[in-house]
Amino acid sequence: MPRQETAERPVGAPAEPTDRRAAILETAARLICEKGYEGTSIQDIADASGLTKAGLYHHIRSKEHLLLEIQNYGMDVFEEGVLKAVMPIPDPLERLKACMAKNILMVTEGWSKEVTIILHEHATLTGEARAHINARKKRYVRFLETSFAEAVKQGQIRPVNPKVAAFAFLGQVLWIYKWFRPDGQIGAQDLAREMIDLFFVGLEAKGAPAKAKPPAAAAKAKKR
Amino acid sequence: MPRQETAERPVGAPAEPTDRRAAILETAARLICEKGYEGTSIQDIADASGLTKAGLYHHIRSKEHLLLEIQNYGMDVFEEGVLKAVMPIPDPLERLKACMAKNILMVTEGWSKEVTIILHEHATLTGEARAHINARKKRYVRFLETSFAEAVKQGQIRPVNPKVAAFAFLGQVLWIYKWFRPDGQIGAQDLAREMIDLFFVGLEAKGAPAKAKPPAAAAKAKKR
Repeated sequence: MPRQETAERPVGAPAEPTDRRAAILETAARLICEKGYEGTSIQDIADASGLTKAGLYHHIRSKEHLLLEIQNYGMDVFEEGVLKAVMPIPDPLERLKACMAKNILMVTEGWSKEVTIILHEHATLTGEARAHINARKKRYVRFLETSFAEAVKQGQIRPVNPKVAAFAFLGQVLWIYKWFRPDGQIGAQDLAREMIDLFFVGLEAKGAPAKAKPPAAAAKAKKR
Repeated sequence: MPRQETAERPVGAPAEPTDRRAAILETAARLICEKGYEGTSIQDIADASGLTKAGLYHHIRSKEHLLLEIQNYGMDVFEEGVLKAVMPIPDPLERLKACMAKNILMVTEGWSKEVTIILHEHATLTGEARAHINARKKRYVRFLETSFAEAVKQGQIRPVNPKVAAFAFLGQVLWIYKWFRPDGQIGAQDLAREMIDLFFVGLEAKGAPAKAKPPAAAAKAKKR
């Protein structure tokens, strides 16, 4: 297929997220994970979505844009379902806990595993598209860092390095798609409760063990 | 290239890991991450390794086996550098802490980021090869689960679900390759120290907050 930037979307086709569009992008994500990006044709996606090729182009721009569209769709759903809901919570510790719960439910139930895979493993985007998705991801990291820093400042949690805490949080939550099975021993709600417990009890602990120095202070002293 | 299972390795070529072989597999991993598996030829790997094609085949079996060889190499280095060193530690909590430290140093300094990517993102292996690598990975998960269960039994840590604890540990550690930069603000040693602090202080906390039920017990009661 030749590289055409915008010619493939018919005039007047909507670009905004709809349930129909979400279903198509979920289907595309599944096919791409099964057969690879190169091995998946627009016809395959149309067939699996019960659409003609022309019908499909009402919902997606082009095969070239598909990975970006799936990643943007994933970030849209994430920002709508997680960030928008937790950002207004004034208490930073409550905000972080709610954020972990919602993010875990998003990863386990909110969208297909394949959307997570494309969001976090497909390094195929380049240039502006890559910069755009990376900026959306970084916004989340900064939100977490800021919330951890606030919680430290307010004395709600021990003095930890906000960056390490943010990435530890993310690693714990985002690794879930690698091992979680919806029909497995642990349900999504139990998992969220247990991970919040694992992560935050230690932060709220008043006294760290005698051996451990306050890590944020130690790191600062060394690095700055 | 035709699928030939064993004909491509010359008689007498060693299969055991050597520094030379490690360097070749690291190079191959880098090329595959840059140009994709399909886009990387045996000639490319030979050129980048300063070898002839025939010379390269003394160290690797075939292009078809390359992903498996890189994954096996990654698991060899991991088992040698992490598991073998920590398994004999009799105290389960000390074992787990040493394991996290060593695994973090492995991910940040022990091998290239590209080996981690191929180990955890390349879902291209099928059949026996896939089963073989998955079994090696599962062995690590079981080792962690058993160690957490032991630490709970000995009263060293709070009663947590060993499976959730194992995957929280892994997520925290294995996500590091996504964001860590060797020339960044946080060094590998500091990172290991801070992540151990983040993860274990909460487990060693004597009293969980009033709201939280002991999660392992609650999950058991519900699921069995």
